[in-house]
Amino acid sequence: MLGLVENKRVVIVGIPGVGKTTLVTTVVDKLNDDNKHASVKSYGSVMFEQAQKIGVNDRDELRKLPVEKQKELQKMAAEEISNLKDDVVFVDTHAFIASKSGFYPGLPNHVLQILQPTHFIIISAHPSEIFDRRMKDKTRNRDKISIGGIKNELAIQESMLSSCSVLTGSPIKVILNNEGKVEEAANKVIKTIGV
Amino acid sequence: MLGLVENKRVVIVGIPGVGKTTLVTTVVDKLNDDNKHASVKSYGSVMFEQAQKIGVNDRDELRKLPVEKQKELQKMAAEEISNLKDDVVFVDTHAFIASKSGFYPGLPNHVLQILQPTHFIIISAHPSEIFDRRMKDKTRNRDKISIGGIKNELAIQESMLSSCSVLTGSPIKVILNNEGKVEEAANKVIKTIGV
Amino acid sequence: MLGLVENKRVVIVGIPGVGKTTLVTTVVDKLNDDNKHASVKSYGSVMFEQAQKIGVNDRDELRKLPVEKQKELQKMAAEEISNLKDDVVFVDTHAFIASKSGFYPGLPNHVLQILQPTHFIIISAHPSEIFDRRMKDKTRNRDKISIGGIKNELAIQESMLSSCSVLTGSPIKVILNNEGKVEEAANKVIKTIGV
Repeated sequence: MLGLVENKRVVIVGIPGVGKTTLVTTVVDKLNDDNKHASVKSYGSVMFEQAQKIGVNDRDELRKLPVEKQKELQKMAAEEISNLKDDVVFVDTHAFIASKSGFYPGLPNHVLQILQPTHFIIISAHPSEIFDRRMKDKTRNRDKISIGGIKNELAIQESMLSSCSVLTGSPIKVILNNEGKVEEAANKVIKTIGV
Repeated sequence: MLGLVENKRVVIVGIPGVGKTTLVTTVVDKLNDDNKHASVKSYGSVMFEQAQKIGVNDRDELRKLPVEKQKELQKMAAEEISNLKDDVVFVDTHAFIASKSGFYPGLPNHVLQILQPTHFIIISAHPSEIFDRRMKDKTRNRDKISIGGIKNELAIQESMLSSCSVLTGSPIKVILNNEGKVEEAANKVIKTIGV
Repeated sequence: MLGLVENKRVVIVGIPGVGKTTLVTTVVDKLNDDNKHASVKSYGSVMFEQAQKIGVNDRDELRKLPVEKQKELQKMAAEEISNLKDDVVFVDTHAFIASKSGFYPGLPNHVLQILQPTHFIIISAHPSEIFDRRMKDKTRNRDKISIGGIKNELAIQESMLSSCSVLTGSPIKVILNNEGKVEEAANKVIKTIGV
Protein backbone atom coordinates (compact mmCIF):
# COMPACT_ATOMS: atom_id res chain seq x y z
CA MET A 1 0.00 0.00 0.00
CA LEU A 2 2.68 2.45 1.01
CA GLY A 3 4.49 1.60 -2.23
CA LEU A 4 1.51 2.78 -4.26
CA VAL A 5 1.39 6.11 -2.47
CA GLU A 6 5.08 6.70 -2.97
CA ASN A 7 5.19 5.94 -6.72
CA LYS A 8 6.12 9.03 -8.66
CA ARG A 9 4.90 9.92 -12.12
CA VAL A 10 7.09 12.80 -13.21
CA VAL A 11 6.04 14.70 -16.32
CA ILE A 12 9.04 16.29 -18.02
CA VAL A 13 8.45 18.90 -20.70
CA GLY A 14 10.69 21.23 -22.64
CA ILE A 15 10.66 22.99 -25.97
CA PRO A 16 13.00 21.74 -28.74
CA GLY A 17 16.58 22.80 -28.12
CA VAL A 18 16.68 22.55 -24.32
CA GLY A 19 18.40 19.14 -24.34
CA LYS A 20 15.58 17.29 -22.60
CA THR A 21 16.22 13.77 -23.92
CA THR A 22 19.90 13.68 -22.95
CA LEU A 23 19.06 15.03 -19.52
CA VAL A 24 16.30 12.49 -18.82
CA THR A 25 18.55 9.62 -19.87
CA THR A 26 21.25 10.88 -17.48
CA VAL A 27 18.75 11.08 -14.63
CA VAL A 28 17.41 7.55 -15.18
CA ASP A 29 20.96 6.11 -15.39
CA LYS A 30 21.88 7.80 -12.12
CA LEU A 31 18.78 6.48 -10.35
CA ASN A 32 19.29 2.94 -11.67
CA ASP A 33 22.96 3.02 -10.59
CA ASP A 34 21.57 3.90 -7.17
CA ASN A 35 19.28 0.81 -7.24
CA LYS A 36 16.08 2.79 -7.76
CA HIS A 37 13.53 1.39 -10.23
CA ALA A 38 13.25 4.27 -12.65
CA SER A 39 12.06 4.29 -16.23
CA VAL A 40 11.26 6.82 -18.92
CA LYS A 41 8.38 6.71 -21.38
CA SER A 42 7.93 8.97 -24.33
CA TYR A 43 4.24 9.82 -24.29
CA GLY A 44 4.13 10.13 -28.07
CA SER A 45 5.69 6.68 -28.54
CA VAL A 46 3.30 5.00 -26.09
CA MET A 47 0.40 6.62 -27.91
CA PHE A 48 1.70 5.36 -31.25
CA GLU A 49 2.02 1.82 -29.79
CA GLN A 50 -1.68 1.99 -28.84
CA ALA A 51 -2.52 3.19 -32.34
CA GLN A 52 -0.63 0.27 -33.92
CA LYS A 53 -2.91 -2.14 -32.01
CA ILE A 54 -5.85 -0.76 -34.00
CA GLY A 55 -4.00 -0.96 -37.32
CA VAL A 56 -2.48 2.52 -37.60
CA ASN A 57 0.89 2.04 -39.22
CA ASP A 58 2.63 5.39 -39.26
CA ARG A 59 2.58 8.61 -37.30
CA ASP A 60 1.14 10.64 -40.17
CA GLU A 61 -1.87 8.32 -40.24
CA LEU A 62 -2.22 8.79 -36.45
CA ARG A 63 -2.34 12.58 -36.81
CA LYS A 64 -5.09 12.31 -39.43
CA LEU A 65 -7.48 10.25 -37.27
CA PRO A 66 -10.70 11.97 -36.16
CA VAL A 67 -10.24 14.00 -32.98
CA GLU A 68 -12.42 11.64 -30.91
CA LYS A 69 -10.30 8.64 -31.96
CA GLN A 70 -7.12 10.52 -31.06
CA LYS A 71 -8.51 11.36 -27.63
CA GLU A 72 -9.29 7.70 -27.05
CA LEU A 73 -5.72 6.73 -27.94
CA GLN A 74 -4.38 9.51 -25.68
CA LYS A 75 -6.37 8.06 -22.78
CA MET A 76 -5.17 4.52 -23.55
CA ALA A 77 -1.56 5.75 -23.49
CA ALA A 78 -2.15 7.49 -20.16
CA GLU A 79 -3.62 4.29 -18.68
CA GLU A 80 -0.68 2.25 -19.96
CA ILE A 81 1.77 4.61 -18.24
CA SER A 82 -0.24 4.91 -15.02
CA ASN A 83 -0.11 1.10 -14.65
CA LEU A 84 3.71 0.97 -14.54
CA LYS A 85 5.07 -0.18 -11.18
CA ASP A 86 8.48 1.54 -11.13
CA ASP A 87 9.35 3.77 -8.17
CA VAL A 88 9.74 6.63 -10.61
CA VAL A 89 8.27 6.88 -14.09
CA PHE A 90 9.38 9.86 -16.17
CA VAL A 91 6.90 10.86 -18.83
CA ASP A 92 8.83 12.58 -21.60
CA THR A 93 6.39 14.86 -23.41
CA HIS A 94 5.57 18.44 -24.45
CA ALA A 95 3.44 21.17 -22.88
CA PHE A 96 2.14 21.79 -26.40
CA ILE A 97 2.49 20.37 -29.90
CA ALA A 98 2.74 22.86 -32.78
CA SER A 99 0.51 22.08 -35.77
CA LYS A 100 -1.17 24.01 -38.57
CA SER A 101 -4.19 24.43 -36.24
CA GLY A 102 -1.99 26.02 -33.59
CA PHE A 103 -0.68 24.73 -30.26
CA TYR A 104 -2.35 21.51 -29.10
CA PRO A 105 -2.03 20.96 -25.35
CA GLY A 106 0.31 18.03 -24.71
CA LEU A 107 -1.40 17.31 -21.39
CA PRO A 108 -5.13 17.96 -21.81
CA ASN A 109 -7.33 17.46 -18.76
CA HIS A 110 -8.67 14.09 -19.96
CA VAL A 111 -5.08 12.80 -19.97
CA LEU A 112 -4.16 14.41 -16.63
CA GLN A 113 -7.11 12.78 -14.87
CA ILE A 114 -5.83 9.32 -15.84
CA LEU A 115 -2.09 9.97 -15.56
CA GLN A 116 -2.34 11.84 -12.23
CA PRO A 117 1.23 13.19 -12.43
CA THR A 118 2.88 13.78 -9.05
CA HIS A 119 5.41 16.29 -10.43
CA PHE A 120 5.76 18.61 -13.42
CA ILE A 121 9.29 19.56 -14.45
CA ILE A 122 10.02 22.12 -17.15
CA ILE A 123 13.50 21.74 -18.63
CA SER A 124 14.53 25.13 -19.89
CA ALA A 125 17.55 27.20 -20.97
CA HIS A 126 18.27 30.80 -21.81
CA PRO A 127 16.48 31.81 -25.04
CA SER A 128 19.84 32.57 -26.68
CA GLU A 129 21.14 29.08 -25.86
CA ILE A 130 17.97 27.51 -27.30
CA PHE A 131 18.39 29.69 -30.39
CA ASP A 132 22.01 28.55 -30.88
CA ARG A 133 21.12 24.88 -30.44
CA ARG A 134 18.27 25.12 -32.96
CA MET A 135 20.51 26.89 -35.48
CA LYS A 136 23.03 24.01 -35.26
CA ASP A 137 20.26 21.43 -35.90
CA LYS A 138 20.44 20.70 -39.63
CA THR A 139 16.93 19.12 -39.73
CA ARG A 140 15.34 22.51 -38.93
CA ASN A 141 14.28 25.35 -41.18
CA ARG A 142 16.62 28.03 -39.82
CA ASP A 143 14.64 30.90 -41.35
CA LYS A 144 11.80 30.19 -38.94
CA ILE A 145 13.93 30.42 -35.77
CA SER A 146 13.80 33.66 -33.77
CA ILE A 147 14.43 34.72 -30.17
CA GLY A 148 10.92 36.27 -30.08
CA GLY A 149 9.33 33.02 -31.19
CA ILE A 150 11.29 31.08 -28.55
CA LYS A 151 10.22 33.48 -25.78
CA ASN A 152 6.63 33.08 -26.93
CA GLU A 153 6.91 29.28 -26.77
CA LEU A 154 8.33 29.53 -23.23
CA ALA A 155 5.40 31.74 -22.15
CA ILE A 156 2.75 29.41 -23.62
CA GLN A 157 4.52 26.44 -22.02
CA GLU A 158 4.44 28.11 -18.61
CA SER A 159 0.78 29.04 -18.80
CA MET A 160 -0.28 25.60 -20.04
CA LEU A 161 1.70 23.92 -17.24
CA SER A 162 0.24 26.30 -14.63
CA SER A 163 -3.18 25.10 -15.68
CA CYS A 164 -2.04 21.44 -15.40
CA SER A 165 -0.73 22.17 -11.91
CA VAL A 166 -4.00 23.75 -10.72
CA LEU A 167 -5.98 20.83 -12.20
CA THR A 168 -3.92 18.13 -10.45
CA GLY A 169 -2.57 19.89 -7.34
CA SER A 170 0.97 18.82 -8.28
CA PRO A 171 3.96 21.19 -8.28
CA ILE A 172 5.86 22.73 -11.21
CA LYS A 173 9.63 23.10 -11.14
CA VAL A 174 11.69 24.89 -13.79
CA ILE A 175 15.22 23.47 -14.16
CA LEU A 176 17.79 25.17 -16.38
CA ASN A 177 19.88 22.81 -18.48
CA ASN A 178 22.81 25.07 -19.20
CA GLU A 179 25.35 24.18 -21.89
CA GLY A 180 27.84 21.61 -20.61
CA LYS A 181 26.17 21.18 -17.21
CA VAL A 182 23.90 18.19 -17.72
CA GLU A 183 25.17 16.45 -14.54
CA GLU A 184 24.24 19.46 -12.43
CA ALA A 185 20.77 19.64 -14.01
CA ALA A 186 20.30 15.86 -13.48
CA ASN A 187 21.05 16.25 -9.78
CA LYS A 188 18.49 19.06 -9.56
CA VAL A 189 15.84 16.80 -11.12
CA ILE A 190 16.60 14.08 -8.54
CA LYS A 191 16.44 16.57 -5.67
CA THR A 192 13.12 17.92 -6.99
CA ILE A 193 11.39 14.55 -6.92
CA GLY A 194 12.96 13.57 -3.58
CA VAL A 195 14.21 10.05 -4.32
CA MET B 1 -22.42 10.45 -38.27
CA LEU B 2 -19.27 11.61 -39.99
CA GLY B 3 -20.87 15.04 -40.34
CA LEU B 4 -21.17 15.36 -36.58
CA VAL B 5 -17.52 14.54 -36.07
CA GLU B 6 -16.42 17.05 -38.65
CA ASN B 7 -18.49 20.02 -37.41
CA LYS B 8 -16.22 22.78 -36.18
CA ARG B 9 -16.99 25.17 -33.36
CA VAL B 10 -14.32 27.83 -33.60
CA VAL B 11 -14.00 30.25 -30.69
CA ILE B 12 -12.56 33.58 -31.83
CA VAL B 13 -11.35 36.03 -29.21
CA GLY B 14 -9.48 39.30 -29.33
CA ILE B 15 -9.18 42.41 -27.21
CA PRO B 16 -10.84 45.65 -28.40
CA GLY B 17 -8.89 47.27 -31.23
CA VAL B 18 -7.66 44.15 -33.03
CA GLY B 19 -10.36 44.33 -35.69
CA LYS B 20 -11.98 41.01 -34.83
CA THR B 21 -15.51 41.67 -36.12
CA THR B 22 -14.44 42.81 -39.60
CA LEU B 23 -12.11 39.85 -39.87
CA VAL B 24 -14.73 37.27 -38.85
CA THR B 25 -17.22 38.70 -41.34
CA THR B 26 -14.60 38.46 -44.09
CA VAL B 27 -13.89 34.82 -43.19
CA VAL B 28 -17.57 33.81 -43.19
CA ASP B 29 -18.17 35.55 -46.55
CA LYS B 30 -15.22 33.72 -48.09
CA LEU B 31 -16.42 30.34 -46.79
CA ASN B 32 -19.99 30.93 -47.97
CA ASP B 33 -18.70 32.01 -51.41
CA ASP B 34 -16.94 28.65 -51.42
CA ASN B 35 -20.25 26.83 -50.68
CA LYS B 36 -19.35 25.97 -47.09
CA HIS B 37 -22.08 26.34 -44.44
CA ALA B 38 -20.47 28.81 -42.10
CA SER B 39 -22.05 31.13 -39.56
CA VAL B 40 -20.96 33.44 -36.81
CA LYS B 41 -22.62 33.91 -33.43
CA SER B 42 -21.77 36.59 -30.94
CA TYR B 43 -21.78 34.77 -27.62
CA GLY B 44 -22.97 37.89 -25.77
CA SER B 45 -25.92 38.37 -28.15
CA VAL B 46 -27.01 34.74 -27.88
CA MET B 47 -26.87 35.03 -24.10
CA PHE B 48 -28.98 38.18 -24.20
CA GLU B 49 -31.53 36.40 -26.42
CA GLN B 50 -31.83 33.70 -23.72
CA ALA B 51 -32.24 36.40 -21.07
CA GLN B 52 -35.06 38.07 -23.02
CA LYS B 53 -37.00 34.77 -22.89
CA ILE B 54 -37.15 35.15 -19.09
CA GLY B 55 -38.15 38.80 -19.25
CA VAL B 56 -34.80 40.58 -19.08
CA ASN B 57 -35.12 43.61 -21.34
CA ASP B 58 -31.74 45.26 -21.48
CA ARG B 59 -28.10 44.33 -21.08
CA ASP B 60 -27.67 46.37 -17.90
CA GLU B 61 -30.40 44.33 -16.26
CA LEU B 62 -28.65 41.15 -17.44
CA ARG B 63 -25.39 42.19 -15.78
CA LYS B 64 -27.22 42.81 -12.47
CA LEU B 65 -28.78 39.33 -12.23
CA PRO B 66 -27.52 37.09 -9.41
CA VAL B 67 -24.40 35.16 -10.41
CA GLU B 68 -26.21 31.79 -10.39
CA LYS B 69 -28.87 33.13 -12.79
CA GLN B 70 -26.16 34.49 -15.11
CA LYS B 71 -24.39 31.11 -15.12
CA GLU B 72 -27.63 29.43 -16.10
CA LEU B 73 -28.08 31.84 -19.01
CA GLN B 74 -24.45 31.29 -20.05
CA LYS B 75 -25.09 27.55 -20.20
CA MET B 76 -28.31 28.06 -22.18
CA ALA B 77 -26.41 30.18 -24.71
CA ALA B 78 -23.71 27.51 -25.01
CA GLU B 79 -26.36 24.84 -25.64
CA GLU B 80 -28.04 27.01 -28.28
CA ILE B 81 -24.75 27.39 -30.14
CA SER B 82 -23.69 23.75 -29.77
CA ASN B 83 -26.95 22.69 -31.46
CA LEU B 84 -26.20 24.60 -34.68
CA LYS B 85 -25.69 22.31 -37.67
CA ASP B 86 -23.39 24.45 -39.87
CA ASP B 87 -20.10 22.97 -41.02
CA VAL B 88 -18.33 25.77 -39.20
CA VAL B 89 -19.73 27.93 -36.40
CA PHE B 90 -17.59 30.84 -35.32
CA VAL B 91 -18.23 31.94 -31.75
CA ASP B 92 -17.30 35.61 -31.50
CA THR B 93 -16.44 36.27 -27.87
CA HIS B 94 -13.79 37.48 -25.40
CA ALA B 95 -11.20 35.67 -23.31
CA PHE B 96 -12.24 37.99 -20.48
CA ILE B 97 -14.77 40.76 -19.80
CA ALA B 98 -13.56 43.78 -17.82
CA SER B 99 -15.85 44.89 -14.99
CA LYS B 100 -15.52 46.71 -11.68
CA SER B 101 -14.92 43.29 -10.04
CA GLY B 102 -12.01 42.63 -12.41
CA PHE B 103 -11.65 40.32 -15.39
CA TYR B 104 -14.47 37.79 -15.73
CA PRO B 105 -13.50 34.75 -17.82
CA GLY B 106 -15.40 34.82 -21.12
CA LEU B 107 -15.15 31.05 -21.41
CA PRO B 108 -15.53 29.55 -17.94
CA ASN B 109 -15.31 25.77 -17.63
CA HIS B 110 -19.09 25.32 -17.26
CA VAL B 111 -19.48 26.95 -20.71
CA LEU B 112 -16.57 25.05 -22.30
CA GLN B 113 -18.01 21.67 -21.24
CA ILE B 114 -21.22 22.41 -23.18
CA LEU B 115 -19.73 24.31 -26.11
CA GLN B 116 -16.84 21.85 -26.64
CA PRO B 117 -14.94 24.18 -28.98
CA THR B 118 -12.78 22.42 -31.56
CA HIS B 119 -10.48 25.43 -32.13
CA PHE B 120 -9.44 28.57 -30.25
CA ILE B 121 -8.22 31.47 -32.35
CA ILE B 122 -6.76 34.63 -30.83
CA ILE B 123 -6.92 37.61 -33.18
CA SER B 124 -4.12 39.93 -32.20
CA ALA B 125 -2.02 42.84 -33.44
CA HIS B 126 1.07 44.71 -32.34
CA PRO B 127 0.37 46.63 -29.08
CA SER B 128 1.17 49.92 -30.83
CA GLU B 129 -1.40 49.19 -33.57
CA ILE B 130 -4.03 48.34 -30.95
CA PHE B 131 -3.13 51.57 -29.14
CA ASP B 132 -3.57 53.63 -32.31
CA ARG B 133 -6.91 52.03 -33.16
CA ARG B 134 -8.26 52.64 -29.66
CA MET B 135 -7.11 56.27 -29.73
CA LYS B 136 -9.08 56.79 -32.96
CA ASP B 137 -12.25 55.33 -31.40
CA LYS B 138 -14.26 58.33 -30.20
CA THR B 139 -16.47 56.21 -27.87
CA ARG B 140 -13.46 55.45 -25.64
CA ASN B 141 -11.97 57.35 -22.72
CA ARG B 142 -8.54 58.05 -24.24
CA ASP B 143 -6.94 58.86 -20.88
CA LYS B 144 -7.31 55.23 -19.86
CA ILE B 145 -5.46 53.80 -22.88
CA SER B 146 -1.82 52.77 -22.43
CA ILE B 147 0.62 50.38 -24.09
CA GLY B 148 1.30 48.79 -20.68
CA GLY B 149 -2.39 48.15 -20.12
CA ILE B 150 -2.72 46.61 -23.59
CA LYS B 151 0.28 44.29 -23.00
CA ASN B 152 -1.29 43.24 -19.71
CA GLU B 153 -4.61 42.43 -21.43
CA LEU B 154 -2.75 40.35 -24.04
CA ALA B 155 -0.98 38.39 -21.28
CA ILE B 156 -4.20 37.68 -19.33
CA GLN B 157 -5.90 36.67 -22.58
CA GLU B 158 -3.13 34.19 -23.36
CA SER B 159 -3.14 32.59 -19.92
CA MET B 160 -6.95 32.31 -19.83
CA LEU B 161 -6.98 30.71 -23.28
CA SER B 162 -4.16 28.31 -22.32
CA SER B 163 -6.38 27.09 -19.51
CA CYS B 164 -9.31 26.67 -21.94
CA SER B 165 -7.06 24.66 -24.24
CA VAL B 166 -5.90 22.30 -21.47
CA LEU B 167 -9.52 21.83 -20.31
CA THR B 168 -10.84 20.90 -23.75
CA GLY B 169 -7.81 19.44 -25.54
CA SER B 170 -8.35 21.86 -28.44
CA PRO B 171 -5.57 23.94 -30.01
CA ILE B 172 -4.87 27.69 -29.73
CA LYS B 173 -3.71 29.71 -32.73
CA VAL B 174 -2.63 33.35 -32.60
CA ILE B 175 -3.30 35.22 -35.87
CA LEU B 176 -2.05 38.76 -36.39
CA ASN B 177 -4.52 41.09 -38.08
CA ASN B 178 -2.12 43.73 -39.30
CA GLU B 179 -3.38 47.10 -40.55
CA GLY B 180 -4.70 46.82 -44.11
CA LYS B 181 -4.15 43.05 -44.38
CA VAL B 182 -7.52 41.61 -43.43
CA GLU B 183 -7.61 39.31 -46.49
CA GLU B 184 -4.31 37.74 -45.51
CA ALA B 185 -5.51 37.23 -41.91
CA ALA B 186 -8.81 35.73 -43.16
CA ASN B 187 -6.90 33.19 -45.24
CA LYS B 188 -4.85 32.24 -42.19
CA VAL B 189 -8.05 31.62 -40.19
CA ILE B 190 -9.36 29.33 -42.94
CA LYS B 191 -6.07 27.44 -43.11
CA THR B 192 -6.06 27.03 -39.31
CA ILE B 193 -9.45 25.33 -39.19
CA GLY B 194 -8.74 23.22 -42.27
CA VAL B 195 -11.92 23.75 -44.30
CA MET C 1 -32.12 32.16 0.62
CA LEU C 2 -31.10 35.49 -0.82
CA GLY C 3 -28.49 35.76 1.93
CA LEU C 4 -26.82 32.58 0.74
CA VAL C 5 -26.60 33.87 -2.81
CA GLU C 6 -25.10 37.16 -1.73
CA ASN C 7 -22.38 35.74 0.56
CA LYS C 8 -18.97 36.53 -0.81
CA ARG C 9 -15.90 34.33 -0.51
CA VAL C 10 -13.02 36.51 -1.60
CA VAL C 11 -9.68 34.81 -2.22
CA ILE C 12 -6.80 37.23 -1.67
CA VAL C 13 -3.35 36.25 -2.87
CA GLY C 14 -0.04 38.05 -3.09
CA ILE C 15 3.63 37.14 -3.11
CA PRO C 16 5.73 37.93 -0.02
CA GLY C 17 6.56 41.63 0.21
CA VAL C 18 3.33 43.09 -1.21
CA GLY C 19 1.92 43.88 2.25
CA LYS C 20 -1.10 41.60 1.95
CA THR C 21 -1.74 40.93 5.65
CA THR C 22 -1.81 44.61 6.70
CA LEU C 23 -4.07 45.42 3.79
CA VAL C 24 -6.59 42.64 4.53
CA THR C 25 -6.75 43.67 8.21
CA THR C 26 -7.47 47.26 7.14
CA VAL C 27 -10.25 46.12 4.81
CA VAL C 28 -11.94 43.94 7.45
CA ASP C 29 -11.77 46.76 10.05
CA LYS C 30 -13.36 49.18 7.60
CA LEU C 31 -16.17 46.77 6.76
CA ASN C 32 -16.86 45.97 10.43
CA ASP C 33 -16.90 49.70 11.26
CA ASP C 34 -19.55 49.92 8.55
CA ASN C 35 -21.63 47.16 10.27
CA LYS C 36 -20.84 44.52 7.66
CA HIS C 37 -20.11 40.99 8.90
CA ALA C 38 -16.65 40.43 7.49
CA SER C 39 -13.94 38.03 8.57
CA VAL C 40 -10.59 36.84 7.33
CA LYS C 41 -9.25 33.30 7.41
CA SER C 42 -5.71 32.27 6.66
CA TYR C 43 -6.11 29.15 4.56
CA GLY C 44 -2.85 27.70 5.90
CA SER C 45 -3.95 28.18 9.52
CA VAL C 46 -7.36 26.59 8.95
CA MET C 47 -5.64 23.63 7.31
CA PHE C 48 -3.28 23.30 10.28
CA GLU C 49 -6.28 23.37 12.67
CA GLN C 50 -7.76 20.43 10.75
CA ALA C 51 -4.44 18.61 10.95
CA GLN C 52 -4.27 19.08 14.72
CA LYS C 53 -7.58 17.23 15.04
CA ILE C 54 -5.85 14.11 13.67
CA GLY C 55 -2.84 14.52 15.94
CA VAL C 56 -0.44 16.52 13.77
CA ASN C 57 1.35 18.86 16.15
CA ASP C 58 3.52 21.14 14.05
CA ARG C 59 3.60 22.51 10.54
CA ASP C 60 6.73 20.58 9.57
CA GLU C 61 4.92 17.34 10.37
CA LEU C 62 1.98 18.55 8.23
CA ARG C 63 4.25 19.13 5.23
CA LYS C 64 5.66 15.59 5.54
CA LEU C 65 2.29 13.82 5.42
CA PRO C 66 1.58 11.68 2.33
CA VAL C 67 0.13 13.75 -0.54
CA GLU C 68 -3.27 12.03 -0.31
CA LYS C 69 -3.56 12.90 3.40
CA GLN C 70 -2.62 16.51 2.68
CA LYS C 71 -5.28 16.72 -0.04
CA GLU C 72 -7.87 15.45 2.43
CA LEU C 73 -6.87 18.13 4.95
CA GLN C 74 -6.98 20.79 2.19
CA LYS C 75 -10.54 19.77 1.38
CA MET C 76 -11.52 19.79 5.07
CA ALA C 77 -10.15 23.33 5.40
CA ALA C 78 -12.09 24.42 2.30
CA GLU C 79 -15.31 22.96 3.76
CA GLU C 80 -14.72 24.70 7.08
CA ILE C 81 -14.36 28.05 5.30
CA SER C 82 -17.28 27.52 2.92
CA ASN C 83 -19.56 26.95 5.95
CA LEU C 84 -18.89 30.41 7.43
CA LYS C 85 -21.96 32.64 7.46
CA ASP C 86 -20.38 36.13 7.30
CA ASP C 87 -21.43 38.49 4.52
CA VAL C 88 -17.84 38.55 3.34
CA VAL C 89 -15.15 35.97 4.08
CA PHE C 90 -11.65 36.83 2.94
CA VAL C 91 -9.46 33.81 2.34
CA ASP C 92 -5.86 34.88 2.84
CA THR C 93 -3.71 32.50 0.83
CA HIS C 94 -1.13 32.15 -1.96
CA ALA C 95 -1.42 31.41 -5.68
CA PHE C 96 1.52 29.04 -5.17
CA ILE C 97 3.71 27.74 -2.36
CA ALA C 98 7.43 27.42 -3.07
CA SER C 99 9.00 24.10 -1.98
CA LYS C 100 11.97 21.98 -2.99
CA SER C 101 9.63 20.21 -5.47
CA GLY C 102 8.77 23.54 -7.08
CA PHE C 103 5.64 25.68 -6.97
CA TYR C 104 2.62 23.92 -5.46
CA PRO C 105 -0.70 25.49 -6.50
CA GLY C 106 -2.26 27.20 -3.47
CA LEU C 107 -5.74 26.76 -4.97
CA PRO C 108 -5.87 23.38 -6.72
CA ASN C 109 -9.10 22.42 -8.44
CA HIS C 110 -10.18 20.02 -5.66
CA VAL C 111 -10.09 23.00 -3.24
CA LEU C 112 -11.78 25.42 -5.66
CA GLN C 113 -14.73 23.06 -6.19
CA ILE C 114 -15.48 23.12 -2.45
CA LEU C 115 -14.55 26.72 -1.70
CA GLN C 116 -16.36 28.17 -4.76
CA PRO C 117 -14.71 31.61 -4.46
CA THR C 118 -16.81 34.48 -5.76
CA HIS C 119 -13.81 36.80 -6.29
CA PHE C 120 -10.06 36.49 -6.78
CA ILE C 121 -7.96 39.49 -5.80
CA ILE C 122 -4.22 39.69 -6.46
CA ILE C 123 -2.47 42.18 -4.20
CA SER C 124 0.59 43.37 -6.04
CA ALA C 125 3.21 46.12 -6.13
CA HIS C 126 5.97 47.27 -8.44
CA PRO C 127 8.76 44.65 -8.55
CA SER C 128 11.25 47.22 -7.21
CA GLU C 129 9.01 47.93 -4.18
CA ILE C 130 8.66 44.20 -3.49
CA PHE C 131 12.44 43.90 -3.79
CA ASP C 132 13.02 46.73 -1.29
CA ARG C 133 10.52 45.29 1.22
CA ARG C 134 12.11 41.83 1.03
CA MET C 135 15.61 43.29 1.49
CA LYS C 136 14.45 45.01 4.71
CA ASP C 137 13.01 41.74 6.07
CA LYS C 138 15.75 40.32 8.31
CA THR C 139 14.23 36.80 8.35
CA ARG C 140 15.03 36.39 4.63
CA ASN C 141 18.16 35.21 2.86
CA ARG C 142 18.96 38.41 0.96
CA ASP C 143 21.30 36.68 -1.48
CA LYS C 144 18.33 34.87 -2.99
CA ILE C 145 16.30 38.02 -3.75
CA SER C 146 16.34 39.36 -7.34
CA ILE C 147 14.08 41.50 -9.51
CA GLY C 148 14.09 38.72 -12.14
CA GLY C 149 12.92 36.16 -9.58
CA ILE C 150 10.14 38.50 -8.40
CA LYS C 151 8.93 39.09 -11.98
CA ASN C 152 8.88 35.34 -12.51
CA GLU C 153 6.79 34.82 -9.35
CA LEU C 154 4.32 37.49 -10.54
CA ALA C 155 3.99 35.74 -13.91
CA ILE C 156 3.38 32.29 -12.37
CA GLN C 157 0.88 33.83 -9.95
CA GLU C 158 -1.05 35.40 -12.83
CA SER C 159 -1.19 32.24 -14.89
CA MET C 160 -2.23 30.07 -11.92
CA LEU C 161 -5.00 32.53 -11.00
CA SER C 162 -6.19 32.72 -14.63
CA SER C 163 -6.70 28.98 -14.49
CA CYS C 164 -8.62 29.32 -11.17
CA SER C 165 -10.81 31.96 -12.78
CA VAL C 166 -11.66 29.80 -15.81
CA LEU C 167 -12.41 26.84 -13.52
CA THR C 168 -14.84 28.76 -11.29
CA GLY C 169 -16.16 31.51 -13.56
CA SER C 170 -15.20 34.15 -10.96
CA PRO C 171 -13.31 37.35 -11.79
CA ILE C 172 -9.67 38.30 -11.08
CA LYS C 173 -8.73 41.81 -10.00
CA VAL C 174 -5.17 43.05 -9.56
CA ILE C 175 -4.84 45.80 -6.90
CA LEU C 176 -1.58 47.65 -6.38
CA ASN C 177 -0.65 48.22 -2.74
CA ASN C 178 1.79 51.08 -3.17
CA GLU C 179 4.06 52.15 -0.32
CA GLY C 180 2.19 54.34 2.18
CA LYS C 181 -1.16 54.02 0.40
CA VAL C 182 -2.83 51.14 2.23
CA GLU C 183 -6.09 53.09 2.77
CA GLU C 184 -6.43 53.71 -0.96
CA ALA C 185 -5.80 50.02 -1.72
CA ALA C 186 -8.32 48.97 0.96
CA ASN C 187 -11.00 51.14 -0.66
CA LYS C 188 -10.24 49.51 -4.03
CA VAL C 189 -10.74 46.05 -2.49
CA ILE C 190 -14.12 47.11 -1.08
CA LYS C 191 -15.19 48.59 -4.42
CA THR C 192 -14.13 45.39 -6.22
CA ILE C 193 -16.34 43.13 -4.13
CA GLY C 194 -19.25 45.59 -4.17
CA VAL C 195 -20.24 45.65 -0.49
